[in-house]
Amino acid sequence: MRRLWEIGEREVISIFRRHLSFPSNLRLPIGDDASAVDLGSGIVGVLSTDMLVGKTDVPPGMTMWQAARKAVVMGVSDLAAKGARPLIALCSLGLPRDLTEGDITEVARGLDAGAREYGAHVVGGDTNESDDLVISCSFLGVCDGGGPVPRGGARPGDILAVTGLFGETAAGLKMLLEGLEAPPAIRDRLLRAVYEPRARLREGIALAQGKVVTSSIDSSDGLAWCLNELSAASRVGFTLTRVPVDEAAEGFAAIHNLDAMDLALYGGEEFELVVTIRPALWKRATEVIREVGGSLYRIGHATEEEHGIVLEKGGRERVIEPRGWEHFSR
Amino acid sequence: MRRLWEIGEREVISIFRRHLSFPSNLRLPIGDDASAVDLGSGIVGVLSTDMLVGKTDVPPGMTMWQAARKAVVMGVSDLAAKGARPLIALCSLGLPRDLTEGDITEVARGLDAGAREYGAHVVGGDTNESDDLVISCSFLGVCDGGGPVPRGGARPGDILAVTGLFGETAAGLKMLLEGLEAPPAIRDRLLRAVYEPRARLREGIALAQGKVVTSSIDSSDGLAWCLNELSAASRVGFTLTRVPVDEAAEGFAAIHNLDAMDLALYGGEEFELVVTIRPALWKRATEVIREVGGSLYRIGHATEEEHGIVLEKGGRERVIEPRGWEHFSR
Repeated sequence: MRRLWEIGEREVISIFRRHLSFPSNLRLPIGDDASAVDLGSGIVGVLSTDMLVGKTDVPPGMTMWQAARKAVVMGVSDLAAKGARPLIALCSLGLPRDLTEGDITEVARGLDAGAREYGAHVVGGDTNESDDLVISCSFLGVCDGGGPVPRGGARPGDILAVTGLFGETAAGLKMLLEGLEAPPAIRDRLLRAVYEPRARLREGIALAQGKVVTSSIDSSDGLAWCLNELSAASRVGFTLTRVPVDEAAEGFAAIHNLDAMDLALYGGEEFELVVTIRPALWKRATEVIREVGGSLYRIGHATEEEHGIVLEKGGRERVIEPRGWEHFSR
Repeated sequence: MRRLWEIGEREVISIFRRHLSFPSNLRLPIGDDASAVDLGSGIVGVLSTDMLVGKTDVPPGMTMWQAARKAVVMGVSDLAAKGARPLIALCSLGLPRDLTEGDITEVARGLDAGAREYGAHVVGGDTNESDDLVISCSFLGVCDGGGPVPRGGARPGDILAVTGLFGETAAGLKMLLEGLEAPPAIRDRLLRAVYEPRARLREGIALAQGKVVTSSIDSSDGLAWCLNELSAASRVGFTLTRVPVDEAAEGFAAIHNLDAMDLALYGGEEFELVVTIRPALWKRATEVIREVGGSLYRIGHATEEEHGIVLEKGGRERVIEPRGWEHFSR
């Protein structure tokens, strides 16, 4: 019988889908970034959970404070993509027994700092002994006045947009994991992207409350992969007219003769929102984003499903493969 | 600097309390079995999370189906103690890479079976690779018409009661971990208690909606320890007039010359509710419990705090030490 490392994460998820039974009153379909359920009186409760595991999510040099904060950011980002406001979080911790009192204090401080950045509070959890650091944060949030925004609402013709530029994290991980170097200014930006990622909560809530987006996802599994997810959930294709590459990633790619677009498309652990917007609402969308101090980059549009996901460049089309960062793969 | 295994779980929790900042609109204090927050329109959202870790929570012989179901029961029990009805759960999984496809199917089926037993649904989560099996379930529930019931509401004079008898799990674990034997009839009951524990959800909701309990906790850390927790949260003492020992545990203790009361007081992984009730409401409490097909055993009463936790037996008092089952301790 096949073992986990031969199966891969996507198929593991499909095994779960086959064997779980789902209620009819869900407000988001299974497999979306978070779960949402009507609680009555027009209130939608939104629940998200995400697990940070030392081995796969904590790169070399990341402090305990940063790891704990990142665990919170991962959960906030899931809610942000749905337009939900996080209220409280519970964090289950698996702690290796050789951690010091100082390490544990840093974990606590990192959780608190991460939550407060987004107006939420870590109000409890539980602690367990484990071989590797595990921080599993569950958030309870609410949608008030808009949302939850699903992955599956994009229609052909919708504008495809993102809340930020990509590639910094992939470049930063290349520095940390493969030993590539960069000048101090670039180096600092790339490492900061890896060590202290940010969730686009204000943007996500503003877009949902403004009722300007038809679909939304966070890019934590990489831009190419999340386009693939939006595509599958909405049954549309996407034509990219631009790959939103960050300047520092571009510089890093030039130094090392790497493809900057690859860094932007196939990274991961970035927490921008990828959304679709009806053309008639584009202007309004840019306004609501500007009101909260954010940015919105138009990168393409949704097409009929059979067109797939392609990049249009110099009059030619290049297929964007649905690769992403996948756990368990060798 | 001290390491985790020298610190112990309680002190780890106290480190977290010192470094986390808490909001003012919580409906249950920090450190209670679950967290609760007003969502408006009289709706109280309740969030719980619990992590099952293979090394410490999955005894020898437990199947993957049973381990997954137990992870769900642990979460349901936390909500049950607060009188909240679980709606949906998200389960974060840490899976060792040598698990088979069959193992993963059993995990999925166990999660589903556990949730459906209690009218809830596992609607998602995420999967990660880890060295040991980790199942972290987060539940979103609601209180409608009563609750959340805190740990801290007991007053001197209140009746102390439990929803079931104790000791089976501790006896069963002695069989599995120390190789002690028992006749088939006893053996089967003890192992079933370990492998397929049940949460007292109907009882917890009935007690909360009947507004008959002043405090409530689930006994997953052992009866003695949860009395200690209720005592600390409510600032009362407890006098036990009876230790509610299960018959099979009693039989097992007799065979092996063990103290049956110790099995009942200092076990763990049992999921009965331990509650306090004003004497004037005792009759009503037994009625609401009977209406849902449950049992309520009167085992003592709350006293002034300075009396501590004691067992009254044959006119003599024995102090019940606040020992429990603690992770990280050697």
